[in-house]
Amino acid sequence: MKKVEPVRIWEDMKVSELVDSMGDAGFGAGKINRAAQIMGKMFSDEKCKVFVGLAGAMVPAGMKQIILDLLDDTDVLVTTGATLTHDLIEALGDEHYLLEDSDGDFDDGSLNRKGFDRMYNVVMRNRVYENLERFFVVNWEKFKECKTIKDIVWKIGELCPGTSEDCILKKCYKKKIPLFCPALADSGIGLMIWGRKASGKEIFIDAFEDMKEIIDISWTARKTGVIYVGGGVPKNFIQQSLQFSKGADYGIQITADSPEPGGSSGAPLKEGISWGKLKKNADFADVRCDATIALPLILGAVRGKSKKP
Amino acid sequence: MKKVEPVRIWEDMKVSELVDSMGDAGFGAGKINRAAQIMGKMFSDEKCKVFVGLAGAMVPAGMKQIILDLLDDTDVLVTTGATLTHDLIEALGDEHYLLEDSDGDFDDGSLNRKGFDRMYNVVMRNRVYENLERFFVVNWEKFKECKTIKDIVWKIGELCPGTSEDCILKKCYKKKIPLFCPALADSGIGLMIWGRKASGKEIFIDAFEDMKEIIDISWTARKTGVIYVGGGVPKNFIQQSLQFSKGADYGIQITADSPEPGGSSGAPLKEGISWGKLKKNADFADVRCDATIALPLILGAVRGKSKKP
Amino acid sequence: MKKVEPVRIWEDMKVSELVDSMGDAGFGAGKINRAAQIMGKMFSDEKCKVFVGLAGAMVPAGMKQIILDLLDDTDVLVTTGATLTHDLIEALGDEHYLLEDSDGDFDDGSLNRKGFDRMYNVVMRNRVYENLERFFVVNWEKFKECKTIKDIVWKIGELCPGTSEDCILKKCYKKKIPLFCPALADSGIGLMIWGRKASGKEIFIDAFEDMKEIIDISWTARKTGVIYVGGGVPKNFIQQSLQFSKGADYGIQITADSPEPGGSSGAPLKEGISWGKLKKNADFADVRCDATIALPLILGAVRGKSKKP
Amino acid sequence: MKKVEPVRIWEDMKVSELVDSMGDAGFGAGKINRAAQIMGKMFSDEKCKVFVGLAGAMVPAGMKQIILDLLDDTDVLVTTGATLTHDLIEALGDEHYLLEDSDGDFDDGSLNRKGFDRMYNVVMRNRVYENLERFFVVNWEKFKECKTIKDIVWKIGELCPGTSEDCILKKCYKKKIPLFCPALADSGIGLMIWGRKASGKEIFIDAFEDMKEIIDISWTARKTGVIYVGGGVPKNFIQQSLQFSKGADYGIQITADSPEPGGSSGAPLKEGISWGKLKKNADFADVRCDATIALPLILGAVRGKSKKP
Repeated sequence: MKKVEPVRIWEDMKVSELVDSMGDAGFGAGKINRAAQIMGKMFSDEKCKVFVGLAGAMVPAGMKQIILDLLDDTDVLVTTGATLTHDLIEALGDEHYLLEDSDGDFDDGSLNRKGFDRMYNVVMRNRVYENLERFFVVNWEKFKECKTIKDIVWKIGELCPGTSEDCILKKCYKKKIPLFCPALADSGIGLMIWGRKASGKEIFIDAFEDMKEIIDISWTARKTGVIYVGGGVPKNFIQQSLQFSKGADYGIQITADSPEPGGSSGAPLKEGISWGKLKKNADFADVRCDATIALPLILGAVRGKSKKP
Repeated sequence: MKKVEPVRIWEDMKVSELVDSMGDAGFGAGKINRAAQIMGKMFSDEKCKVFVGLAGAMVPAGMKQIILDLLDDTDVLVTTGATLTHDLIEALGDEHYLLEDSDGDFDDGSLNRKGFDRMYNVVMRNRVYENLERFFVVNWEKFKECKTIKDIVWKIGELCPGTSEDCILKKCYKKKIPLFCPALADSGIGLMIWGRKASGKEIFIDAFEDMKEIIDISWTARKTGVIYVGGGVPKNFIQQSLQFSKGADYGIQITADSPEPGGSSGAPLKEGISWGKLKKNADFADVRCDATIALPLILGAVRGKSKKP
Repeated sequence: MKKVEPVRIWEDMKVSELVDSMGDAGFGAGKINRAAQIMGKMFSDEKCKVFVGLAGAMVPAGMKQIILDLLDDTDVLVTTGATLTHDLIEALGDEHYLLEDSDGDFDDGSLNRKGFDRMYNVVMRNRVYENLERFFVVNWEKFKECKTIKDIVWKIGELCPGTSEDCILKKCYKKKIPLFCPALADSGIGLMIWGRKASGKEIFIDAFEDMKEIIDISWTARKTGVIYVGGGVPKNFIQQSLQFSKGADYGIQITADSPEPGGSSGAPLKEGISWGKLKKNADFADVRCDATIALPLILGAVRGKSKKP
Repeated sequence: MKKVEPVRIWEDMKVSELVDSMGDAGFGAGKINRAAQIMGKMFSDEKCKVFVGLAGAMVPAGMKQIILDLLDDTDVLVTTGATLTHDLIEALGDEHYLLEDSDGDFDDGSLNRKGFDRMYNVVMRNRVYENLERFFVVNWEKFKECKTIKDIVWKIGELCPGTSEDCILKKCYKKKIPLFCPALADSGIGLMIWGRKASGKEIFIDAFEDMKEIIDISWTARKTGVIYVGGGVPKNFIQQSLQFSKGADYGIQITADSPEPGGSSGAPLKEGISWGKLKKNADFADVRCDATIALPLILGAVRGKSKKP
């Protein structure tokens, strides 16, 4: 037991100082501090392979640069088809917009007539699908060599506009960060591929082939660390591959879901100890918080302190 | 506006009477009633194709019979690999167990030593994977003809022990209910397929092929209804296919997740109106509740009243 | 450990049968069953004093009859001023209304112009305050003898229209159920008392006097049981008085709040063991659920089975 | 609509820069920014009376200095008896401690034997009550002149050790900030007063008298702003008094509770427009977040930018 020490704030305070100040606080504040410490350790432990599982509408919400920054220390990224679709949409020149804040009241009938698709208080034009489709039509021949989902998403990264500074797909391709997306079919990108296939343009992408690579990385890693932003398939796919490691040494989870209903997205990291997905003596922290608040704060503290490699 | 009428209870009250009694109540109670009414309409509307999206550890929690019952009125089931894996585990003779209720405190280190894998207050023996593996080793040749994920899960349903009365996979196969599982790779069944492939036993399963069928069903349906239990890929994959319908006519969602963090799992059905996934004048109800409580209550009210077909 | 047994439903199923069927289920379903069992035990244990803590807008939501039913087995009721104010409003002939279900979107500006006060999807006319005021103006002289908050609320119960069949205040007064409301000032009834006092009509109500009685009941009870519906002051005031017992023998909590942010309303019952508010070997269950769903289901199961005394 | 602009972080970034960077982000991040902007406006609007409603175990969690800082711009503080009790406990020299982070698993039986009372992952020694009792025994005569709850809590502030730099009670007393606590009976301080009264030491504290003062402040204020940290009685008591203003001009709410179950603590600020508690065109933001994370971040941004008065 250590004494609770009050969090303090001051003029010109830095993000890293705020998070340091939370170091002897209870509840969520203490967990933010703990997550930042663990992230720092994970990033500076050269033996450690860092797996990032990313779910939720983080790109539409404006978290793209935070994720790009996180990729500087990421060895494996697993995400949803939606994340990659929104990233590609922005790479192709389209945008996301904020609705006037009206605390949860949105006129979806009117948005539909005006051609906007809503994700809480963010929207995009429905016609972004036209640019998406053009991208796949124009580049389709180049996708034919792809055999796995990872091949496809790296290929998109190779072909799409943008740079490692502003596009997740591009950065993963350029930096050769393995990028997995088991449910790519469940996304706008998936629809585009279906559209091509429906037009008789064949392509064969094996649904299970990428498992070899992620399990190999897990199997051969000397140490592993996980960062789960949201739950869903990205978290579970990493958890599953960790059964082939000795269990993660470091773990951070940021989720707004609760454990009581029993789903994987709200399950505490600790549950993974029973499965062998997390070491019994691992350094880990569960942060129950909207990830658009917690992730910039945690990564801001980590980056705020030390130069990036 | 109608007057709030108090919910009442009495001796020997039936489930359908309790839910009827909630008809003029506010908050969650009123939504349970509304969901039951909509489910009844959806099931009795012969023009309506019913899409069920099922996420969360419902089989381990003891909801298998409820889902089997729901399948009597289901035209399309989309679920997670975990749901099907736990269903297969039970079909192969293994079991799930309840931990002594201790309100959230579980000794995962001890469970790990004893060989139990935990999902909140439910566990299974880690050695269930042995029976799973044997099933795939013995039957592997028969899977080689499979081309899509739906082929695989129907084939499992064909080959596994059990009946339509106690196995989801078997019932979907026997009743020819299209069963989709875009992220099957992300599950114990996925691991078994990876294991066979890793041993040089080739199989080619296309990751996108099933999209044709679900989009066709959506496209050609005169009316559509959705029932989302949990969110995740199952919800999103149905939502995506509904963009090719005129939007769902009926909708029920049971989730414990909140809308504010912006993820798809907590997004209210209403948001789908902007995307064209839900008709503006659809009958729909969002129930924010643990699905193991709400689903038996709602379906119990529907089944309690009228004989099943 | 016991085996998970699936929940089943059937035609004409009774509420008590549904809840029985949840007895070997995980997650929320199992907790509903456990809460019903504990409630049954608590009610039939003649040595046990039952303390009910009631928060949240349960009367506006249509839970009044459920609470009246619960009072048949209640020895002490602690609630909010709002609960009693809405109960009195109904006793005086006014009503609560349901807004058209529109999934969270409500035009509060328009409601304001039309004179309606909103609580989620329930409203009441703002002019209910006129009847309230009249009641206190007419009866004011009779309140002057009151010395404690309990005196006031029992006096309201004595003077207000209605019967033990339709009014919480009346039933507590008639059945001499001690009724405590530490924050009565924080309510419409509080405003009426302030209004009288502001008009120079003196009355002196001691803010601490009721503590004696609730602590005496706790101190002298051979066994104690608690039922918390929502948290807030009602839960905490009972918890505090239980420090003078040997700790509760039985406990049920129904709340939608989470433990992680550290507030009393979301704190699991188990935390009370450290304080001595709950016995280490007590029978207790935390149900994380909207109380308008869980309470009718649990009490419905208890009442459904056995005749009320 | 404005374009979503990604949040960015950099080395040595300041808290105010991080929150500025969230200005064009969606979901929780955007709300943090909006809350900080509104807080800044509220504090610099000289016509505006700022009402702070404070619930939850903020002092045990280490938020005391944040609250003390907030008091520099607070005109009225309404809080729980627990907040003031924990503040007094620290003023009397006792401490709060952090439990080893074990993600929700705490051995309450063992804590009880060792004499620790738990609030999530924070504990205090049960014997802090001895110092509390001594304080009231020694000073009891000086409390006899108190007539209202505000008199008592200011008197505690006058008599207790500590300074405006480290004690909320002291600062409110010294700076003459009206401090209301309608449910003071429901707290350790309440127990001490009960203890004195039970020993025959009479004191008469009117339960309703403080309403005059808070309603007067609300009634006469040219403009009003509210900051709700948690819900409960503090929020509701301020909301109630605002019915006597023209409705608040500014509003910030930080709560982890959800609107769907219909309770006041989770109710969005917007609901207050129907009641006339909030102006239709008010500047307001609801932040759904653990307050130990959101409040230091928001106030840190406000203070980080501009010198305190």
